[in-house]
Amino acid sequence: MKTWRDNIRQVVPYTPGEQPKEQGVIKLNTNENPYPPSPKVMEAMKNICNLRKYPDPGAVDLVEGIADYHGFSKDEVFVGVGSDDVLAIAFLTFFNGKRPILFPDITYSFYDVWADLFQIPYETKPLDEQFEIHSEDYYGENGGVIFPNPNAPTGALLHIGAVEDIIRHNQDVVVIVDEAYIDFGGETAKELTRKYDNLLVVQTYSKSRSLAGLRIGYAIGNKELIKAMNDVKYSFNSYTMNEPSIVLGTAVIKDEAYFQKTKSQIVETREWFKKEMKKLGFSFADSKANFIFAKHKEAKAKDIFEAAKEEKIYVRYFSKPRIDNYLRITIGTREEMEIFLSFLKKYLA
Amino acid sequence: MKTWRDNIRQVVPYTPGEQPKEQGVIKLNTNENPYPPSPKVMEAMKNICNLRKYPDPGAVDLVEGIADYHGFSKDEVFVGVGSDDVLAIAFLTFFNGKRPILFPDITYSFYDVWADLFQIPYETKPLDEQFEIHSEDYYGENGGVIFPNPNAPTGALLHIGAVEDIIRHNQDVVVIVDEAYIDFGGETAKELTRKYDNLLVVQTYSKSRSLAGLRIGYAIGNKELIKAMNDVKYSFNSYTMNEPSIVLGTAVIKDEAYFQKTKSQIVETREWFKKEMKKLGFSFADSKANFIFAKHKEAKAKDIFEAAKEEKIYVRYFSKPRIDNYLRITIGTREEMEIFLSFLKKYLA
Repeated sequence: MKTWRDNIRQVVPYTPGEQPKEQGVIKLNTNENPYPPSPKVMEAMKNICNLRKYPDPGAVDLVEGIADYHGFSKDEVFVGVGSDDVLAIAFLTFFNGKRPILFPDITYSFYDVWADLFQIPYETKPLDEQFEIHSEDYYGENGGVIFPNPNAPTGALLHIGAVEDIIRHNQDVVVIVDEAYIDFGGETAKELTRKYDNLLVVQTYSKSRSLAGLRIGYAIGNKELIKAMNDVKYSFNSYTMNEPSIVLGTAVIKDEAYFQKTKSQIVETREWFKKEMKKLGFSFADSKANFIFAKHKEAKAKDIFEAAKEEKIYVRYFSKPRIDNYLRITIGTREEMEIFLSFLKKYLA
Repeated sequence: MKTWRDNIRQVVPYTPGEQPKEQGVIKLNTNENPYPPSPKVMEAMKNICNLRKYPDPGAVDLVEGIADYHGFSKDEVFVGVGSDDVLAIAFLTFFNGKRPILFPDITYSFYDVWADLFQIPYETKPLDEQFEIHSEDYYGENGGVIFPNPNAPTGALLHIGAVEDIIRHNQDVVVIVDEAYIDFGGETAKELTRKYDNLLVVQTYSKSRSLAGLRIGYAIGNKELIKAMNDVKYSFNSYTMNEPSIVLGTAVIKDEAYFQKTKSQIVETREWFKKEMKKLGFSFADSKANFIFAKHKEAKAKDIFEAAKEEKIYVRYFSKPRIDNYLRITIGTREEMEIFLSFLKKYLA
């Protein structure tokens, strides 16, 4: 046994949803957007010309585009390689205290992975039986707070008043609100960053903007938080954002009409799909995200998951305590959801 | 003073070379390739179609393309967002011992930044007066070894026999050979990864392949090292590689003829440029990279740097002990180097 093995960092990595390579799959397992991105992306492709040079390390065009869109200044915005990169850098930057950071017991399964990777102590706060977050669980001393809103994989939204309550009770630590799914029906906490200098709000291009393939996430927060994140980022890799993503990401955020249209289509499909699923005997939290997290009154989630996969319909199943009888089903197009419902009707008959 | 500030990770970030936005600049400051990438890149642009979906988390097409090219299997290759990402992940994965890691005192200035970021103890080994590495300086107990070959910013090449000598004396720790510039005239250590299971060889698309804008770097090593790096990577961000980079990066590595041609042009320009620089009173290590690291017998490096910038010619100057009278000058096109030489002749007259 060579000793170099002793010095390898021990981790249990996050397992991403499957990315099947076969054709004809209905993919409702990774919360991607079923619509193509804004046509402005393909138009902007011709502006990707200078690949031999390093990209702008500050990705200023992209940062400014995002800042303008949200009504902030460019030193209040941080960009990264998807919101996972943004969140990983935030963990590394802000969670260096001795007290445990807090997050819900049922939540985005990357939080405990990052905590383990960076050796950050953490404590989970159980959701209630309806899978709701209670703000008072986050009172008291801690090393930081993070939660998604809407929560994943439940889809449940915490009202902005309760979000502010958590922030108000935690002004000595950094509070991160992970808003990957906020555009599908929640109220963003971004305006609260003007009131609370310890609040970081994280959003992404991967869901509502249909650009998971470009890997763009961003954070909004006060200048001091953003500077600290950039310092850490520049200590990790000066050029995390590649030229195509900068060029295309800057173009797409300007197409507000397309964004509103496709977002509304998904919300409409979701609300219709919820009614159909109730008729079939499923129950779920009232999702405000582009997925629902559902349990059937009789059929086992794992069995449905496997039977659906046989039919080339991929949904997400988590073999974890408390949620091992639930399926997370992404909202695809109306047609895709109809095929899934037909499958369920046949399966449950 | 809010206490959240106390828990921010303290770092002194790496300062990348300037990326001036003005037109008409001769940019010899960041070791980019003066030639455009292979035309296969622009052809492959039309294959970037599915941006709404997450990319393949394993970036298998790209990994296989690189593995095939180098004659390795795909589980012996790790890809990342430029070699900086690959190196940062390697530091995080392998350098977790209590003993200091070793690297040269004059070297890529990111090494101490990563060590500080991840709180890894380190010790530097001075280069000799000719800026050469001596392999025996790396004997003895340590937590790992890393050095670039050719070294940066000196351009000096360590002969493959001396590289192996360092590895042979350090089989209990991971040894990383950072070969960002190897294609411009050195012998790669990649074959030694078959003999030493603790050796990691890192290369990049940013220099010899003219694709700094895509952010692609990679490592070659035994399966166990590569798996450990992937575990850490998947614990940081499942999807670091974006779709355009996967598609374009896979296409370009197949164009060997273009690669050989442009590489030879740079080597030829470098050898001619060295002679011209000697005539002007400059001295430098015998660079095997796409830059030279030169000092003038009379004129001060900082003054030349500033005067060149006035003329819109950017070279790199490091205000650091032992090297504060040197300029790192990237090899551009023959025409660019002629303009730089004309400037120098006038300046030194």
